[in-house]
Amino acid sequence: MATTPPLPARGWAASAADAPLAPITFERRAPRDGDVVIDIDYCGICHSDVHTVRNEWHGTAYPCLPGHEIVGRVREVGPGVIDFKPGDVVGVGCLVDSCRECPSCRRGLEQYCVRGATQTYNWPDPDFDRRTFGGYSTTIVVQERFVLRVPETLDPAAAAPILCAGITTWSPLRKFGAGPGVHVGVAGFGGLGLMAIKLARALGAEVTAITRSPEKGEHAKAAGAHDVVISTEKDDLRRARMSLDLIIDTIPVHHELNPLLKLLRLDGNLVLVGAIEPFDEGLDARLLYLRRSITASAIGGLPETQELLDFCGEHGIVADIETIPMERVNSAYDEIAAGKIDFRYVIDMATL
Amino acid sequence: MATTPPLPARGWAASAADAPLAPITFERRAPRDGDVVIDIDYCGICHSDVHTVRNEWHGTAYPCLPGHEIVGRVREVGPGVIDFKPGDVVGVGCLVDSCRECPSCRRGLEQYCVRGATQTYNWPDPDFDRRTFGGYSTTIVVQERFVLRVPETLDPAAAAPILCAGITTWSPLRKFGAGPGVHVGVAGFGGLGLMAIKLARALGAEVTAITRSPEKGEHAKAAGAHDVVISTEKDDLRRARMSLDLIIDTIPVHHELNPLLKLLRLDGNLVLVGAIEPFDEGLDARLLYLRRSITASAIGGLPETQELLDFCGEHGIVADIETIPMERVNSAYDEIAAGKIDFRYVIDMATL
Repeated sequence: MATTPPLPARGWAASAADAPLAPITFERRAPRDGDVVIDIDYCGICHSDVHTVRNEWHGTAYPCLPGHEIVGRVREVGPGVIDFKPGDVVGVGCLVDSCRECPSCRRGLEQYCVRGATQTYNWPDPDFDRRTFGGYSTTIVVQERFVLRVPETLDPAAAAPILCAGITTWSPLRKFGAGPGVHVGVAGFGGLGLMAIKLARALGAEVTAITRSPEKGEHAKAAGAHDVVISTEKDDLRRARMSLDLIIDTIPVHHELNPLLKLLRLDGNLVLVGAIEPFDEGLDARLLYLRRSITASAIGGLPETQELLDFCGEHGIVADIETIPMERVNSAYDEIAAGKIDFRYVIDMATL
Repeated sequence: MATTPPLPARGWAASAADAPLAPITFERRAPRDGDVVIDIDYCGICHSDVHTVRNEWHGTAYPCLPGHEIVGRVREVGPGVIDFKPGDVVGVGCLVDSCRECPSCRRGLEQYCVRGATQTYNWPDPDFDRRTFGGYSTTIVVQERFVLRVPETLDPAAAAPILCAGITTWSPLRKFGAGPGVHVGVAGFGGLGLMAIKLARALGAEVTAITRSPEKGEHAKAAGAHDVVISTEKDDLRRARMSLDLIIDTIPVHHELNPLLKLLRLDGNLVLVGAIEPFDEGLDARLLYLRRSITASAIGGLPETQELLDFCGEHGIVADIETIPMERVNSAYDEIAAGKIDFRYVIDMATL
């Protein structure tokens, strides 16, 4: 199909589960019909990047080049692209393609594509004999349906985490009706928790942060939470009993769900968005008999991600970030794995 | 308040967890404002009766006089009652009172009364120094809000199970939108499963019965199921994978939820209505990441129970029953506990 040669690119990748990320050169496909070539300016570091690079979820192929919170500028477009032009500020999130025909894709919920959407990294790459390579790189080539418009009023580095941390919380906030008169709890306070608080607050909901750490609780209040429940304090838990309509549970490791269920009122929903460990071993099903539900939500579809970016542009919402040079990525991983940070690291690709 | 003497009544009650039910005489309160005095004609035997009488859920006080699928005729009404008159065919389900003021009661969801609705039996009785006594008796006195009108076109004995088995499945079928274009699974095939199939079918849904037993599967088809999945057959489970929008799970004992979750498509809901054992020990939370939810639903409120009775009257729906004399209640309990029957026993109170 493509007669032009592939595009040279540079990036950082890990060659094994225990190897640090290091410089790599590789190729991106030449742009074809509907493709957008993007020069990457910033890429956020998601906890998933760390899990994947270290093969903690298994199934990682090496070299592994992560990154799915990508913001950059359009360099050129392939034939048929009319919505984007060179110079546009754009974003790419966790998905770069999907079947586009199944019921999920037709609803704009490409993340639930029944044939399996193509993930931005560590996914079989239809164009090369390797996995897809993500955003820790100079360049990416993506079908326009999977390219998002980033409002130019937003700081592009701080907007990058909207593409994963943001949409992962936005999608369930919208689906479960967060807004005026709805009391939303946000459990866990890292990159996702912070975005959830900002978004729920901007949507007009009453927001309660649920965290083990009084210090993180203070940060949550500064981010917009109306109230804080310290989850190790029985009095706090008792006070908040049956008070919430919705809990966005961003805690990324195994944890007990029963104490969270008790905070829900009639018809309340507990939505897991953290990457929970495979098994919950102590769910008390009796706690569900108030039509409380447990469900889980994965990132978001393209239309809702664009809706979110537009909403963030309108409300001036971005992530709390620290921009770092590419060389700091390995030490940043250690800090993230240790659960030490309550902001998002974003790599400045100019340092590559 | 009441100046007239209490009403004499007869019934059958258990005096201890291991004692058979035996005749008892007792009193009902004299009718006060808003009360309806009902001569009981029929009372269905619910699996809950067996659990409670045998103290399998703990908390049973003795003597224990069960029964919450009550159909009879109005004998007399207290002051202020205008909706019922002597001779009316009426029903009483699992609840005989509630606070009427909390958000749940105001929504007509008295079963979720935040102060705790008064259950028809084994609940602290505000009028006597004992627990409430249920429907295995000649007479009951109930506030009119908790009295239901039974369509006279229905066989009164076969209508009795609508008041518990029926409403327990109707409430989630309605809440989760069972109707044309919605594919409903019904797991378990006893009194509840049978009603769920009949009701989902009458609502216009596509209905799949899920049962371990090929014989029960045949019965389910006769009752209206379009399809049957034998839950011990891997091929059957594979065929039905991601095909259902809603599962009404009526299985009354501990069971694995993961195989049922796999049958749900995007946004599908698994609703527990059987009295599940306290803990589920092997829930795979990863299966929820298709916005599948697990929730649980308890019986139903009074307005929705009346809606159901009217719907059953319109569609000629009743339970499959066998009418028995009071003397057979103890052997019926043994059969129910053994999971042997796929119909409902209903006691003919004329035999008392």
